[in-house]
Formats: sequence, structure tokens, C-alpha cells
Amino acid sequence: MLINCVAYQDGKRLADIEPDAISDHLARPECFVWIALRDATETELAKIKEEFNLHELAIEDARNGHQRPKVEEYGDIVFAVVQTLEFTATDELHVGEVDIFVGPNFVISIRNRCQQALLGVRERAEREPHLLKIGAGFVFYALMDAVVDRYLPIIDALEDELEAIEGQIFEPGTARGNIKRLYMLKQKITVVKHAVTPLLESAGKLTSGRVPMVCLGTRDYFRDVYDHLARINASLDTLRETIGTAIQVNLSMTTIEESEVTKKLAAWAGIFAVATAFAGIWGMNFEHMPELKWHWGYPTALGVIAATCVVLYWRFRRAGWL
Amino acid sequence: MLINCVAYQDGKRLADIEPDAISDHLARPECFVWIALRDATETELAKIKEEFNLHELAIEDARNGHQRPKVEEYGDIVFAVVQTLEFTATDELHVGEVDIFVGPNFVISIRNRCQQALLGVRERAEREPHLLKIGAGFVFYALMDAVVDRYLPIIDALEDELEAIEGQIFEPGTARGNIKRLYMLKQKITVVKHAVTPLLESAGKLTSGRVPMVCLGTRDYFRDVYDHLARINASLDTLRETIGTAIQVNLSMTTIEESEVTKKLAAWAGIFAVATAFAGIWGMNFEHMPELKWHWGYPTALGVIAATCVVLYWRFRRAGWL
Amino acid sequence: MLINCVAYQDGKRLADIEPDAISDHLARPECFVWIALRDATETELAKIKEEFNLHELAIEDARNGHQRPKVEEYGDIVFAVVQTLEFTATDELHVGEVDIFVGPNFVISIRNRCQQALLGVRERAEREPHLLKIGAGFVFYALMDAVVDRYLPIIDALEDELEAIEGQIFEPGTARGNIKRLYMLKQKITVVKHAVTPLLESAGKLTSGRVPMVCLGTRDYFRDVYDHLARINASLDTLRETIGTAIQVNLSMTTIEESEVTKKLAAWAGIFAVATAFAGIWGMNFEHMPELKWHWGYPTALGVIAATCVVLYWRFRRAGWL
Amino acid sequence: MLINCVAYQDGKRLADIEPDAISDHLARPECFVWIALRDATETELAKIKEEFNLHELAIEDARNGHQRPKVEEYGDIVFAVVQTLEFTATDELHVGEVDIFVGPNFVISIRNRCQQALLGVRERAEREPHLLKIGAGFVFYALMDAVVDRYLPIIDALEDELEAIEGQIFEPGTARGNIKRLYMLKQKITVVKHAVTPLLESAGKLTSGRVPMVCLGTRDYFRDVYDHLARINASLDTLRETIGTAIQVNLSMTTIEESEVTKKLAAWAGIFAVATAFAGIWGMNFEHMPELKWHWGYPTALGVIAATCVVLYWRFRRAGWL
Amino acid sequence: MLINCVAYQDGKRLADIEPDAISDHLARPECFVWIALRDATETELAKIKEEFNLHELAIEDARNGHQRPKVEEYGDIVFAVVQTLEFTATDELHVGEVDIFVGPNFVISIRNRCQQALLGVRERAEREPHLLKIGAGFVFYALMDAVVDRYLPIIDALEDELEAIEGQIFEPGTARGNIKRLYMLKQKITVVKHAVTPLLESAGKLTSGRVPMVCLGTRDYFRDVYDHLARINASLDTLRETIGTAIQVNLSMTTIEESEVTKKLAAWAGIFAVATAFAGIWGMNFEHMPELKWHWGYPTALGVIAATCVVLYWRFRRAGWL
Repeated sequence: MLINCVAYQDGKRLADIEPDAISDHLARPECFVWIALRDATETELAKIKEEFNLHELAIEDARNGHQRPKVEEYGDIVFAVVQTLEFTATDELHVGEVDIFVGPNFVISIRNRCQQALLGVRERAEREPHLLKIGAGFVFYALMDAVVDRYLPIIDALEDELEAIEGQIFEPGTARGNIKRLYMLKQKITVVKHAVTPLLESAGKLTSGRVPMVCLGTRDYFRDVYDHLARINASLDTLRETIGTAIQVNLSMTTIEESEVTKKLAAWAGIFAVATAFAGIWGMNFEHMPELKWHWGYPTALGVIAATCVVLYWRFRRAGWL
Repeated sequence: MLINCVAYQDGKRLADIEPDAISDHLARPECFVWIALRDATETELAKIKEEFNLHELAIEDARNGHQRPKVEEYGDIVFAVVQTLEFTATDELHVGEVDIFVGPNFVISIRNRCQQALLGVRERAEREPHLLKIGAGFVFYALMDAVVDRYLPIIDALEDELEAIEGQIFEPGTARGNIKRLYMLKQKITVVKHAVTPLLESAGKLTSGRVPMVCLGTRDYFRDVYDHLARINASLDTLRETIGTAIQVNLSMTTIEESEVTKKLAAWAGIFAVATAFAGIWGMNFEHMPELKWHWGYPTALGVIAATCVVLYWRFRRAGWL
Repeated sequence: MLINCVAYQDGKRLADIEPDAISDHLARPECFVWIALRDATETELAKIKEEFNLHELAIEDARNGHQRPKVEEYGDIVFAVVQTLEFTATDELHVGEVDIFVGPNFVISIRNRCQQALLGVRERAEREPHLLKIGAGFVFYALMDAVVDRYLPIIDALEDELEAIEGQIFEPGTARGNIKRLYMLKQKITVVKHAVTPLLESAGKLTSGRVPMVCLGTRDYFRDVYDHLARINASLDTLRETIGTAIQVNLSMTTIEESEVTKKLAAWAGIFAVATAFAGIWGMNFEHMPELKWHWGYPTALGVIAATCVVLYWRFRRAGWL
Repeated sequence: MLINCVAYQDGKRLADIEPDAISDHLARPECFVWIALRDATETELAKIKEEFNLHELAIEDARNGHQRPKVEEYGDIVFAVVQTLEFTATDELHVGEVDIFVGPNFVISIRNRCQQALLGVRERAEREPHLLKIGAGFVFYALMDAVVDRYLPIIDALEDELEAIEGQIFEPGTARGNIKRLYMLKQKITVVKHAVTPLLESAGKLTSGRVPMVCLGTRDYFRDVYDHLARINASLDTLRETIGTAIQVNLSMTTIEESEVTKKLAAWAGIFAVATAFAGIWGMNFEHMPELKWHWGYPTALGVIAATCVVLYWRFRRAGWL
Repeated sequence: MLINCVAYQDGKRLADIEPDAISDHLARPECFVWIALRDATETELAKIKEEFNLHELAIEDARNGHQRPKVEEYGDIVFAVVQTLEFTATDELHVGEVDIFVGPNFVISIRNRCQQALLGVRERAEREPHLLKIGAGFVFYALMDAVVDRYLPIIDALEDELEAIEGQIFEPGTARGNIKRLYMLKQKITVVKHAVTPLLESAGKLTSGRVPMVCLGTRDYFRDVYDHLARINASLDTLRETIGTAIQVNLSMTTIEESEVTKKLAAWAGIFAVATAFAGIWGMNFEHMPELKWHWGYPTALGVIAATCVVLYWRFRRAGWL
């Protein structure tokens, strides 16, 4: 679905143009065309392939979707795939995709399986004509920057979740819930990692070394994107490692708790076993058990039993078992 | 066993040729020969070695089989080994091998220990004469692409298996089955990894840096293969890491479950120990135990025992032990 | 907030200058200006941006803060971000930031969210005119060196904390506290690591390879900073690894302790079970139990019970269970 | 001990020569000398050092032995150390060493602490005069290939051992034996790894980049050796990782088994505790316990006890505890 | 403290010279001066700084000590820091430091906090005038070689300690001691690692790539040092990994032992619970319990109890629980 198609000259919006008028504008080197599509159909893809002379493999990638993020050059055209991330209503991560074709005087962005509009990017770019003047390379940067900026709240949400888990990891009785949440969190991080790491690599190629022609004037800007991605990537690595440690700690806490329960069990079992043993002995049916006939026999027996239990209790207490 | 041997010119099938006619066609630079063998015999290997002037070490590798995937250059001839993967009837992974020799005007593919036919590759290639025109390099790409494409359903199956395990990892009483399945899964992943990782490396060499002569015109295509392999490789790494975490989580769940059982055991042991101790005391044979003679002694005793048990039960419940 | 703004010539303090006089001094190539700000406002940033012709992206980074440490070149101006670390009153790590702009004849340092003054740097530098003579590059080094030097006591504090934990890791009953402290410590180390590792990388770029113009004369000095950072980084890695091992050891100790408790529990349970079983048998109500009528029956029974318990106790003792 | 010393020309054996005649043959550029020693004495080493003008440090390494595998150049002479591996009678790994000096027209191999003869290498090489014609570089390859080929059965034996352990890792009651065997296996793998990894690195240097003069004509052959080593190395890495997982799985199985025992213990303890409690209550000595006087009191009591036990048993069974 | 100061020419000792005479000898290019100091004072450092024109940062490093091992170039002077390792009387590792300045015709070694004398180095060097003739570079090598050689017995001691622990890791009841020793051993290895790894890196720089002027003639010698360090480093890595595995194994053994104790506990608890339950039943006070009046009731009861216990014992035995 075509969203819009605008021609720019000297950083200023020239006109909304009809698809058929694109080739006229492409012929004029002083202006460039910025086309935005959404969930492009076969026909649309075939059309832009022909119009802009795009490579078959790139179009195929755009058609199939589910690519890993990348930046590839086909001649003087750059083809980039970036992934968008959104939380669904059920708090799961939904992965969408934006395919971007950048040529000397055109930019085509195709948004797939992704709710967030990229309209804001165009508006913001049009408010800064001195930058938009740079051309297609700047639009490419603006799109990439917009997608990457939207990773930040995702990272924040994941960090908040981890902090929430950490807040109760040392509480007794929470191990079962914690381990489940940690596992779920780790899976989300893996999803984000898959979006970020390959993109980081690709962004690096737009910053240093042999930079594609269309990005030459915006190297400093892509370095900025690279920087954001590097920070996000570092956060993800930290999250991942912390989760690993938290899983270990959770296991340790379970073992510690169990060990404390075992100690309590052992202590009380000991105390009652002693009481029962005494009672058992005085419950034997021997004829000649003189203490059974004493007048104060029973109270004495109860006293002995109670005293033993108290002594045991006190010793277990002192040993930290109770 | 020779499957077929066809000469192509200008991207079109020229003729099915007899092995003896190969040298005639090799002499004509404008056409190339594509030979497919299956579980080649010593004699066949010796023959193609002589006919195409292949290096002894490469032929030896093809003869022995069980090589790790690789792409090697011997002069202007490229020798590639790729592994095929199939699930057997008993759900195990079977590893086959395809050896490919690519020269300026010939391609030889030898399929070993592998059920899947590669016929489809030839058919598809013949349907696209504008690509087949590129020559031996394109056939090489088509073969490699076909093999790599067949990795994808394997990966999907492994991911499904992991998801199935994840679905019950937090269910009590499943730990024993989970750990076994996780271990089996990890072994399968290792098998796939051995097929993919060295190939990824080799595919990289066909894409950038000093690319072999015969692949110069198909660099963009091999980059596509490389991209697929990179995605598969990333999936494998994720699978591997997730399995590692799942094993840890499984252990944690076992420990948590055991700790809960221990708590229950301790609680019930406590409750009954108290009951038994009371009963033991009133079962002692002292002569002067006044309560034994009371009319309501027995019901009172039962009441005391029951009350103690209820109090204990309630306290254990509140502590989350029951 | 402007802290001070001083012009230097030939390594000597020329004069405290007003912001408006800066451009006059910048025009004189033989002197350089060193400006220090703290928590700079929008207006101040806009002003220095214009005055020194700084790049918009660098200014934006300085405005937003929370960057990862880095050293970037914008033309012949170097922009560096370093993080400051301080312990708060509640023993947590507070991360501040110093942004440094270094041009051919100016240095601007902007301190954000950071209690520690950098005044000492200026004083020390002014005491060594033969070094200050080198120019802006040396001031850059002096600032970086000052920040890095303040990492050392942080590392020492973390190492002391680890040593304190190690001191009681083999003590029984401390597992719960240890694990919590180890987890907290690991988090602090992660914070420091985030400040150090990217800076180490950046400092490397100031030492070897293509060094920015303004740092050419101070390569040996930056190598010194690099060296400090490398040492700190190695310490952090060791700390991290040791904590990992300590967590494992802590878990092992818990398991060992529990296993010892289980043994004790088993041993005492066994001893009392035997006593209770004997008592139970002689407490049965059969009519014909001859030993019940013996005169020495009761003492004999007690003796048998006691003897059995002693034998069991002795055997458990020998087996190391008690 | 000198094993043999033969001169070759044009790939054919010229003559067995006496040590004193070596220098005559070295003077003739068209032939080369291949000397094999075994556990060389000081005198022998001193002699070949002088005769072939070998570097002192290389001779010292050959004298001391216990070097890590390496390939070093001293001028136009290549000095290589490779390790041989053999299983001893008690199934332990014995590490020997072969030191190889390769010059433009000589090869010296010194076998140390190693039972396996390298005679086969000479025989095989002499059967292929078209290859032996290549000269000293080919002999170097043949020796290295022979040593590396003997690693393969070692790897197979280690893989078999791992498979044997895997076969019983999920069997109850085998944990103790498994863990011991896994630990022993890991140590053997470490020994093999120490032989293989540094050699892999060195073999890489004989294949690509700046290859030593004497190996220029045999690059493809050394790539073959490199390939074998890479495969072996990958197998070792897999073995190592699998052992790591197996140790984890073994621990999990132990924990799972224990957890099952704990459940059984808890269930039976519960059942008998209930029976004992009932018996204890009816064993109390209260005067007014009407049910004790009922005619069917005893059978009823037995019935109640049995029924309770059966109900409990059934519930535990359903919960999977029994 | 100055130990000695000797001038050499043509590999032979010229004379012990007074500090004041140094500059005279430095002026003669055909001879070089070798100075050894120990725990140098401020004054001594200031003096050699001036005499040999050393860089301030290097002198500062020598003054402060506690540097990480490194090799740095300041102009044509090389400054190296290596760490010495010694076991103290209490079997702890003591870290000392040797700072070495190497110029075209002088070598200065400063030994800090280190008991071992380096006198032996000078003696050995003077016995080999053909090598000492090489000049300052060779002395540098000899010093480094001497320090590195002393690492070997340390490694051997650590390996012996590990072997001793391994010898009892599968013995029951040793877990507590093992874990402590493993942890201590790991800490020692970390200390050695900190001395070796940075030095390995630095030694690499003296061997290949752009080698400092003064070391050009001794590249092969430094490669030898590099080789030793690489071997030591590999041993350390193996030690470290083996300790990791040993800690895991130790935990596994504890868990296995505990699981065996739990089984024994469960089995005996079961046996006695049955006996007690029977005794309890026949200890009930029902009036109509016919078996109580049988003449052979008591022996029969004892028989039933004993038989049940034996059957249970036999079944537990067969199940491997006892």
C-alpha cells in the first residue's frame, strides 16, 4: 500500500507526486524522491523494481521478509533491512521490518508487519531543510535513527522487569515465579539482540572504512546511530549476563532455603523423637518398673520429657537450626 | 553412478551428452558442461579426474567423504564440500555430502550418502536461461543455495522441538523427560552446526576479498547464500544458548520442587510427631495419672491432639509449607 | 554554570577572561583557552557551539548526557565523553559524566551530575608550565588522567568487599548473606565496567594508529592513561570471574552443609527409631511375654536399648555422619 | 640413535649414506638427504647442528623436548615440533614428540619418547617418486601428515568413550561412575587439544600468507593437513562442550533422582505416621474409651487404619509420588 | 641500592665502574654499560633519569611500582616491566617487579620487592662472550629469560596441587576441603596469569612486526621467550578450566553422596516405621484382641515383625538403596 510519494529539492518539499510521475523527477539530478510503502504487494514491488532498476535479490528479500537486519550494496544502490520492535497487548515482543532502498536521488521505505507509523520521520525531516538538503543519505539516516530510537523504551522496559525480579529474588518462596520470569525475559532479550547486533555491524560499515557513496555526506550521523546501537547492545549484554547470574542466585537461594528447612525438620524431628522414645519406654509393660508406682512418677516423667525437649530446643537454637 | 551429463550454451540446454563426448564440449569455450553423479565409484572418480584434470588431493577428499564443509581453490578450479541434512524415519539427523568441482566451463556435483535428489536444481536453473547464461558460477550458486535452503526446515523442526520442551519445563514432574530431550536436541544442533559454521566461513570467501575467478560474476548471489547461512547460524547459536539456559532452569525447577516436597514432608512429619507424642504420653503405664480416670478424659485428649494438629496445620499453611 | 575560563600562553596563565573575550584569544594562535563548565544550560551550550563552531551531534550528546564513554573526531576537533564514578552515602555507585571538547587552541570541559571538582587538575597543570606548554592536548590528557585516577580507589573498595565476602564464604550459615553481597557486588562491577571498557578502546585510538592532530604531541601520555585503564580493566575481569567462582563455591558450600545435616538427621533418626521400636515391642499387650515378668526385665531392656543406641552412635561417628 | 640416512635424487633413492658422507651430498643441489633419528643423544645433536648449521635455540628445543607444537623459521631452515599421541596399556595418553628440521636439501626427523615408528612414511614416499621429486618440502608434509593421521583413531576412541557414557547417563544409579569417567575423558581431551591447537595455527602459516621457501611447492598439501587438523580441532571442541553439558545433565539426573526418593520417603513416612498415630491413640490408657470394649472394636480399628493407609497410598500414587 | 655497574666491550667484561664514570663509557659506541639496582631510591632514580635521559613517565612507573607487565618504547629506549613470582613461607604467592631500561648501549635493571637475585644472569652471560657481544639487546633477553624461567617451577607446583586435589575428589567426605583448596588454587592462578598474559603480548611485539631497534639482533631469542610464555599461558588456561570442571564435579559428588544418604535414610526409616507400626497395633488396648491371648502370640508377632523387616531390607538392597 503506497502511503505517500514526495519529491524534494534543495531540502524543501516540491510536490506530492503520482507514481507515474516518478521517472520525470528521477531524471532531474537536483531533486530526489522519497516514497513510503506499507506491506507492499507483489505488483507494487514489481513496479518499483522496474522503475528504480533494483536488484532481483534485494526485491526478493523485501518480498519474503523475515530477513536479518543488514545493509547491502547493489551497485550504487544501498539496500537496508531493519527490524522494528513493539510490545503487543499481551506483553510479548512483535517483530516488524522496514526495508529501505537508497539510491543517488531516491529513498524507498517499505514497512512490513509493523504498527508504528514512520510519518513522524518525514515531518521532522521537513522541519530541518538545512539537513534534508543533504539528500537521500540523510533521509536514510533519519529513518534508521527513528527505528533505533524506538528500541530504547523496549530496553528500558526489559531493565525494569529485571529490576522487579531482582527486588524479590532474595525473598523466600518466590523462586518458582522468579525462574519463570527470568526465562521469559531472556527470550525477549534474545529477540531484541537479533534485531540489534547485525544492525550494529552494518551501521559500522556506514561509518568507517569504505562507506557507500550515498552515505558519504552523513558519516557523522551514522556514527551517531552506531553509537546508540552500541549502547543498546552493551545494555543487552549486561541484561543477559545479569539474568544468567540471577538464575544462578535463584538456584542458590532455593538450595539455601531447602537447607534451612532440612535443618528445622531435623531439629524438630530430633526433639519429638526423644519425647516419643521416653514415652515409649514408660509405656512398656514390664511388671517391675518401680517408677511407675511412685506417686510423683507421672509428673516427674512429664518434667523429664519437657526438660529434655527444652534443652534440645535451646541447643538447636544456638546452632542456628531453629 | 552417473545421473546425467548435459551441455549448455547461452543459458540453454544444448544436449544430453555421453561421457565420451565431454572433451569435445570442453574444447568449445562458449558452452559449459554440468555433470551430476551419485555415490561415485572409484572408476568414475578416476575418469573425471583425468578428463577435467582435477587435483589429486581434491579427488581423494571426494573419495573418502566425511570432510568438513569447505571451499578450496586448486588453480582455477574450485572444489567445494557441502553437507546435506535429513531427518531419518527415527527422527535422527542423517548427514550426507555433496562435492562440487567448478571449472571455467564445467560443474561436477557428486552426491554421497544422501536421499534428496538435486534434480530440482537443474530444472529450476533451466527455467531461468538469463541467469544460467552466467555460466558455471551460477550453477555452483544454484547447487549451494538448494542445499542451504534445505537446512531451513531442519532449523524449524529443532525450534519446534525446543518450544515443545519449553511448554512443559515449568510443569511439575516433567524434569526427567525434559533433560533427556534437551540433551538429544543439543546433539542434533551440534550436527547442524558442524555443517553450517565452516560453510558460512567459506561462503564469506566467495563474497568479499579475493573471490575465485569462476565466482566473480555471482558475488551478489553468494552474498545471498552467505546471508541465509548467517541467519541459520544465528538461530543455531540462539538455540544452543537457550538449551543451556533451559537445562539450568530445569535443574532449578527440580530443586524448587524438591524443596517444596521437603517442606511438605517436614510439615506433616511435625504434625504427626506431635500427635504421636501426646498419644505416647497418655499410653504410659504410670499408676497415678489422674486424667486417665476422668470421665471425659479420652474425648478431651482426642480434642487436645486434634486442636494441636489443626493449629500446626494452620501455621504451616500460613508459612506456605502446605 | 561557568566555573572558569582562562587563557594560557607558553604554558603560563595569561588571564581569566570573560566569555565575550574568548574569540579575541582564539584568533591568536600562540595561546589557548581552557574553559570549565558544570551542568551546562541550554544557553551556555548554544553559545559555545557557536563560538567554537562545534558539531551539532556532539552538542546534542553533551546536552542529553548518559552517553557511553567515547572519543570522537569532528574535523580537527576531538569530542570525548568520560564517566565519573563516586560512592554515595548509601554505598551505591553514582555515575557522572565529563564532556570534553578539544580543538587546536581550546579545551572545554563540561562536568555533569558529578560532585567531584576538577579544579585540582588546573592547579596541578599550572604548576608544570613545561608540560602545559604542549597545549590543548596536554590539558585533555590531564583531565582524562584525573578522571581515570579516581577509578582506582573504587576498584580497591570493590576488591576489599570481595575479600570480606571471601573471608566468610567457608563459614557455615553465611550462605544467604554471601550470595546477596556477591550479587550486589557484581552489579557495581558492571557499572564500573561500562565506564572503563569503552574508554579503554577509545584511549587506544589516541595512542597508536591514526592519532588525532591535537593529541599527536601527547601520545606517550595517553599510552600511560591507556595503561592505567588496561590494568583497571584486568582487575575488573578478575573480580567478575572471581565472583562467578565464589557464587559457585557458595552453592557448593550450601549443598555440602545440607548434606552434612542430612547425614546427622539420618543418624539420629536411626538411633531413635531403634529405641522406639524396642520400646514399642515391649509395650505390646500379649499375655505371654515372659521377659515382662522377670525381675530384672526392665533394667535389662533399658540396657539393651541403651547399648544398641551406643553401638549405632559409635558406628555413625566412625562413618563421619555425626 | 640414528635410524637411517638416505640420499634422494629426482624422487628416487640414491643410496643409504654414512653420516660422514652427508656433506658431500649436501654440496650437490640436485639431491637431498633425509635423516631419521630416535631419542637423539647429545653427541648426535651436536654433530647435526654443525653439519647442517642449525640454530642453537632450535637444537636446544630438540634437546630439552616437552615443547609445544610449533613451526619456526631460522633463516631458510624450518624447525617444526609435533606431538605424537599413543594410548598406553593402561589406557592413558602418552605424549611423544617429533622434531623436524627442513632445509633446502635436507630433512632431519628426530623422534622422542614415542613407540610408533615413522618408517612407513619413508616407504610410502618412496613408492610415489613423482611427489618425492618435489623435494624436502614434500617429505616434511609426509611426516606431518603421518603424525596427524594417527590422531584420528585417538579422537575416535574418545568419541566412543563419550558415547558409552551417554548411553547410561539417563540410567538411575550410574551418576557416580559417569562423573568420574567424564572427568577422566575431559583430561584426555585436554592433552590432545594441547597437541592439536598450536599445530593447527602453525599449519595455517604453511598454507597461506608468507609461506617459508621450502614449503612453497607443497602449499596445497599443507592445506590438506590444515584441513585435517581443523576437523580434529572441531571434534575436540564438540567433545569438550558435550562433556560440559553431560556433567550438567548428570548433576540434573542426580537431583531428579534424589527428588524422587524424597517424594517416596515423604509418602511412605506419611502413611506409616498415620498408622502409628492411630495405634498410639488406641494404645492410650484412659479408663473410659468405649470403643475398646466393643466386640468388633479391634477389627474395626484395623480396618480404619488400613483404609486410611490405602486412601493415602492412592492419593500419593495419583500425585506421582509413589 | 646499586648492586653493580659494569662496562662491557666485545662481549667481555671491561671493568666495574663507578656511577660517575658512566657517562664516559656511554660516549664510546663500541662498549655498553649494564647496571643493576635493587629497590632503587628516589635519588638513584633521579640520577639515572638524568644520566641516561629517560622519559619521565617511565621513571614514574618505576618509582610507583605495581605496574602490569609491559614493554614500551620511548624514542630508541625500551622500558620493560616484568613481574617476579615467589612462594612465601606460608605458601602464598609474592609478586615482585623488575624494571628494565634498554638503550643502544646500556641496560639498567631495577629489582623491586623481590628476594631472588638476578646475579646468576650476569654470570651466565659473561660465560658466553660470543652472545654477549650482541650487546644490550642480548642482556635484555637474558634478564627476561631468567625471570620467565622462574615461572616454570611455580606452574609445576600449581599443577601438583591440582593433581593432589584430583586424587581425592572422588573420595566421599572430602568435598568441603576440596572446594576450599580449589578456590585458593584458582586465586593463585589468577595472580600468575596477571604476570604472564600481558608479558606474552609484549614479548610478541619483540618478535614480529615492527621490532624495537635494540632488539633487532635478538628476535629469534625473544621468540624463544615468547614460546615459553605461550606454553606457560596454555598451562594456566588448562589449569583454570580444569579447576572449573573440578568445582562442578565436586558439587556433583556432594549431590550424589547426599542422594545416597537420602536413600539410606529413606530405607531405614521405612523398615523401622513398619516395625513400630506393628508394635503400636499390638500395643492397643482393645479388649477383644484374640491373638494377644494365644500362647505363641508374642513369638509369632516378633517373627512377623522381623520377617517384614528382612523382606524390606532385601528389597531396598536389591534396589541399591542400602
